[in-house]
Amino acid sequence: MKQNIPSTLPRLEVCLTPALIPLYNVQDYIVVVIDIFRATTSICYGIENGAEAIIPVSQVEECSAYLEKGFDYLLAAERNGEVVAGFDFGNSPFSYTQDKVEGKTIVLTTTNGTHALHLSRAAKKIVIGAFINLTSVCSWLKQQNENILLVCSGWKNNFNLEDTLFAGAVVEQLKDAGFRLDDPAIAANDLFKLAKDDLNQYLKKTSHSERLKKLGIEADIEFCLKVDLTTAIPVLEGERLVRLAQ
Amino acid sequence: MKQNIPSTLPRLEVCLTPALIPLYNVQDYIVVVIDIFRATTSICYGIENGAEAIIPVSQVEECSAYLEKGFDYLLAAERNGEVVAGFDFGNSPFSYTQDKVEGKTIVLTTTNGTHALHLSRAAKKIVIGAFINLTSVCSWLKQQNENILLVCSGWKNNFNLEDTLFAGAVVEQLKDAGFRLDDPAIAANDLFKLAKDDLNQYLKKTSHSERLKKLGIEADIEFCLKVDLTTAIPVLEGERLVRLAQ
Repeated sequence: MKQNIPSTLPRLEVCLTPALIPLYNVQDYIVVVIDIFRATTSICYGIENGAEAIIPVSQVEECSAYLEKGFDYLLAAERNGEVVAGFDFGNSPFSYTQDKVEGKTIVLTTTNGTHALHLSRAAKKIVIGAFINLTSVCSWLKQQNENILLVCSGWKNNFNLEDTLFAGAVVEQLKDAGFRLDDPAIAANDLFKLAKDDLNQYLKKTSHSERLKKLGIEADIEFCLKVDLTTAIPVLEGERLVRLAQ
Repeated sequence: MKQNIPSTLPRLEVCLTPALIPLYNVQDYIVVVIDIFRATTSICYGIENGAEAIIPVSQVEECSAYLEKGFDYLLAAERNGEVVAGFDFGNSPFSYTQDKVEGKTIVLTTTNGTHALHLSRAAKKIVIGAFINLTSVCSWLKQQNENILLVCSGWKNNFNLEDTLFAGAVVEQLKDAGFRLDDPAIAANDLFKLAKDDLNQYLKKTSHSERLKKLGIEADIEFCLKVDLTTAIPVLEGERLVRLAQ
């Protein structure tokens, strides 16, 4: 009699920080990169609003270099919550509205998110997740029948709560679809279940939240925790994030 | 008017895996090394029961080398849940009873725990924690007025639930004593609060637990989750773990 053998199920795993990516054979996975405050939220929103592509880079200098290439790029870079002089805008998702980004290519400076993307390069495919495209990315993941690795960009290579909560939200939508979970996936899911009724309130107890509040980006934070505002799924093609054709 | 300035409070932080230790300036902390299944539980139990010292090593070969030194050591090493031929016993805490260990020095082979200890060497002090000495180690920590880093040994450099739950149990006892918590400490504490009424039941959903069950060490697991059976606190002196004088 044939039985359902659990070990043949695809894996759904959570990599809690980019520093742990080398522990995984990323080539065996579809990777979802997560950087909720604010890179992956802004990327999802920009792609939803018609940006042709978003190119994530890690240094402001790297971003500036695109100026010299002479292409018609929009450049996004912040330092300490302020738009860097000479740049088009910062990292607030509110900058990525249709009137600003439609048809454009944007070079976005983001340290943690870019780091996670680079270390995940060998993956079967890399897509971008945020609360604003949660259900869309989960529905797509369910159809792939592949191992899935949710990579939290974290904060300076260490664990942060907001990215982990999002990973837990993905686990919540996928866990009954036949995946083997690892310990970080179980933990992330349990933390999400604790926090889900009021993500903003839950995150207020973190020190990171204090830091962000000082930057005056509370409206950004609130936006970054909204669920299912968008349906576009950004996917990495070469160095460019573009809209996944579904 | 003088105010209590939060930024002067000592820090209570959780390092979720040994791979993340390099992110901390360990010399600024008292480190608690945690490897619940089963190294730090066995170490706490052995020191409680009068072992003169326990020397943790990472390889069976390294353990064997002590045979050739001609000292009267007890050697503890397992592979796949079996005592290695020629060794005195394995890693079960039940081996560390008074009649077996009193007055003896034991060389204990433990991969994850030794790794965490080695990477924490520069700390102000390194002590060993397990559920069986939970309150004792917390009471001592409260008196130190130092930054505290709870280092989870994890599993092959990655996150595991049992070590994180213990870290969360320490946070539970210390959090009202005036510490600044980081995100991993908040997460560990919330997971502990979810699990504390039945740690064993909570951990049954992990894949690691399945693996341990196959090794036939369910009685060990149950023992490793018992709270406050002992009061001794093992402390690292050179390469030896000995009883902390209190």
